[in-house]
Amino acid sequence: MSYSTQINKHGGLNHLLTIEGIPRDYLIRVLDRANRFLSLGDNIALKNYPVLKGRCVFNIFFENSTRTSSTFEIAARRLSADVMKLNILGSSSSKGESLLDTVDNLVAMQADMFIVRHSCSGAVHLIANHVNRVSPNIQVLNAGDGCHSHPTQALLDMYTIRFFKKNFRNLRVAIIGDISHSRVARSDIWALSILGVPEIRVISPKTLLPMDIEQMGVTVFSDLNKGLKDVDVVIVLRLQNERISSPVLPSAKEYFKFYGLTEDAMKNCDENVIILHPGPMNRGVEIDSKVADSASSVILKQVTFGIAIRMAVMDLLHQERLERDNG
Amino acid sequence: MSYSTQINKHGGLNHLLTIEGIPRDYLIRVLDRANRFLSLGDNIALKNYPVLKGRCVFNIFFENSTRTSSTFEIAARRLSADVMKLNILGSSSSKGESLLDTVDNLVAMQADMFIVRHSCSGAVHLIANHVNRVSPNIQVLNAGDGCHSHPTQALLDMYTIRFFKKNFRNLRVAIIGDISHSRVARSDIWALSILGVPEIRVISPKTLLPMDIEQMGVTVFSDLNKGLKDVDVVIVLRLQNERISSPVLPSAKEYFKFYGLTEDAMKNCDENVIILHPGPMNRGVEIDSKVADSASSVILKQVTFGIAIRMAVMDLLHQERLERDNG
Amino acid sequence: MSYSTQINKHGGLNHLLTIEGIPRDYLIRVLDRANRFLSLGDNIALKNYPVLKGRCVFNIFFENSTRTSSTFEIAARRLSADVMKLNILGSSSSKGESLLDTVDNLVAMQADMFIVRHSCSGAVHLIANHVNRVSPNIQVLNAGDGCHSHPTQALLDMYTIRFFKKNFRNLRVAIIGDISHSRVARSDIWALSILGVPEIRVISPKTLLPMDIEQMGVTVFSDLNKGLKDVDVVIVLRLQNERISSPVLPSAKEYFKFYGLTEDAMKNCDENVIILHPGPMNRGVEIDSKVADSASSVILKQVTFGIAIRMAVMDLLHQERLERDNG
Repeated sequence: MSYSTQINKHGGLNHLLTIEGIPRDYLIRVLDRANRFLSLGDNIALKNYPVLKGRCVFNIFFENSTRTSSTFEIAARRLSADVMKLNILGSSSSKGESLLDTVDNLVAMQADMFIVRHSCSGAVHLIANHVNRVSPNIQVLNAGDGCHSHPTQALLDMYTIRFFKKNFRNLRVAIIGDISHSRVARSDIWALSILGVPEIRVISPKTLLPMDIEQMGVTVFSDLNKGLKDVDVVIVLRLQNERISSPVLPSAKEYFKFYGLTEDAMKNCDENVIILHPGPMNRGVEIDSKVADSASSVILKQVTFGIAIRMAVMDLLHQERLERDNG
Repeated sequence: MSYSTQINKHGGLNHLLTIEGIPRDYLIRVLDRANRFLSLGDNIALKNYPVLKGRCVFNIFFENSTRTSSTFEIAARRLSADVMKLNILGSSSSKGESLLDTVDNLVAMQADMFIVRHSCSGAVHLIANHVNRVSPNIQVLNAGDGCHSHPTQALLDMYTIRFFKKNFRNLRVAIIGDISHSRVARSDIWALSILGVPEIRVISPKTLLPMDIEQMGVTVFSDLNKGLKDVDVVIVLRLQNERISSPVLPSAKEYFKFYGLTEDAMKNCDENVIILHPGPMNRGVEIDSKVADSASSVILKQVTFGIAIRMAVMDLLHQERLERDNG
Repeated sequence: MSYSTQINKHGGLNHLLTIEGIPRDYLIRVLDRANRFLSLGDNIALKNYPVLKGRCVFNIFFENSTRTSSTFEIAARRLSADVMKLNILGSSSSKGESLLDTVDNLVAMQADMFIVRHSCSGAVHLIANHVNRVSPNIQVLNAGDGCHSHPTQALLDMYTIRFFKKNFRNLRVAIIGDISHSRVARSDIWALSILGVPEIRVISPKTLLPMDIEQMGVTVFSDLNKGLKDVDVVIVLRLQNERISSPVLPSAKEYFKFYGLTEDAMKNCDENVIILHPGPMNRGVEIDSKVADSASSVILKQVTFGIAIRMAVMDLLHQERLERDNG
């Protein structure tokens, strides 16, 4: 359902809801476009790409987030957009208003883009479907919905991988952690598949694996050392606190013992391996401090690249809209 | 007391605190002024009315609100104002500071306009009176105070009614719901009266009616069907959750049975009736979903018009100040 | 440790962390610089000092604050900076991320200045030390850390004192209240000492005095009337609510009886005494309402001056950076 909602009749993106179904060329186009926004941060010429000048971006967060919300806001402002922050927690939705009524109200305020995060899988698609019916002028970007999708995270991860590995052709990539509840894992697997990575591995205790995982074209490992053998890229997932001491996981210490990324475990990887993590990190739970701070870690580069990717996505979506409006 | 605080010696508005006492011509002037801001939302020319450029607007909310706060912020920014959001909940006021000390501090920060919402009736007037004493340069806009007044809501309701009904001369308008606790009802009744609507009805259970209501020139109905007979405009009030299951109201279901606006009840109205609601809606409590989504519903138009009205009010108040300063 | 972190090799400030160690001439330079920003508030020419145009300021508050956060935001915006508000309460830090990981992430977002408030003494220095290691381009301003330092409050207090008293040469200054837990008291004492005030007094119950206080060059009084004898300036500290009814303080009423600044107590002071308070005030606890509202009170002037001082500090720090970058 997702990709038909987001793709317009010319094959371009009207919204960005999920990586699933986006053609390889389009993903590459986003990564290429991000290049032009990368040197912006450290000089004074921020205002030189005013493509969203006079446009209004609503940052609509039904779930708390500082990092994602802030980087989207920075990205939008660097394109000269007017950004409205709307924390919906504790507002209309708590007053008993339905999700679509809230959305209808935001539509009536006449924004140009909605950046939406929601704790329920599928909520952002529901919103985009609804927006498609009521207003052709609003574009929806998924900033994370439940366990489902977090497309800009996947795009920034792909940008980071390409930046350090040049291309996707001969890579072994391992994703470690709670695959079952991770929108990052799902989005990364889709992106890696589309971009042609030949070997995608997931390393996870069985209790944190979704049932259909092998249908996504990945190899499953429950042993960390075997899973890391000769990999070029490791994506470490955050272990959500609410998982710890639940039936699926006895303790953080136990998890670290078997799945924490330590210097010892790293010895299995290719010597030029890079380590990614979507943040925020739990040091001593899913990753050892020495690994987090090692030369292999590109975790902070991801944050910087994330702003460029979000600028690129907004820039491209806006261009799609202009092209549509002009013919 | 209210209108003497807000009206300056030339009969213009220095603040906007309440609809009560504003001359008919001035209300019409606000509605007319809003016209020029209505097409702004859907094109890129948002920045063409920079009347508040270099001016600082403080959005001071002592009570939670997403919708009203956001539409005021959007309106101020579209006039090129610098907007500061100040959520006073859990800040200085919780540290034991008095309301007027908080206001004095905000005055000392040298804003040009205060947009104020407060849960206590009269609080915004208190603030405006105080501001009149300490600083001639700050204009106060009431964004809702307790059960008392919500003037921009009334103005946008009037704009909506005029938009669809062309004028106020021959209208029957019914307001349904908890009149007693509603600042929207009070403000609408004042506005409708001043604008010359010949028949204003309120439809409400007796427990939710204020004692002095008939002195406001309205006709009271406790039967929904009789009250709706031949009306041209229905304003449905939100039933506040805290009213439900209180001594005045057994249950939401009971309320819906007698006062919920259903398709059946709608049959009593004029065939071209329009339905207004200040939002957020409780579907299935004060309004049936089919009615909310029917062609008669102009609820989302109210949101869009609300931004134009708030721009118009800020524009006019600012002009009053300039005229005062120049002579 | 502090001053070596904040001072660059040419003796200028790279960060503003603490008043301790800043040379007298530099403090005077900040006060002088603030003059140019003082008439800005009340006219339309706010945008005439766009020294931070294209620069990004992060307002990073690990502790709640409306007043300080707002005045820093106003100050930065009046210099045309892009301001991002980041309330870290209840975000990444509550997700178990370490302070320095949070900071690293913010650094990776490529801001130019961090305005930081933190409830722990020393936290802002820790951040600045870390920033010095990882990014030469970010300047850190301390907006209050624990019981340690609040340098812009001290600077605005000094500005206020100089504004009314012309110079610091012959002054008697008394600080009343909970010295032990007050970053304002510590910062003011440092500033008054450096600026050459000959007599600095603290008036406080023994339970609210730090042990090393006399080494700071102040005279200690436990009797309010004696302490106020012939003083030219009184700085009244806010009594934090959490101190009241704790072992160190029986009740607010008891405190007011012995240390509340009343009209009677004021009679001990010089007839031209001025009263300062960092806000928010507890009327009837540390200060009587009549004193707060008297002609001697310059408390609201402090708020206005505070914006000018914060503009001056940001302007000067930015200039230091430009000079460093250009040679």
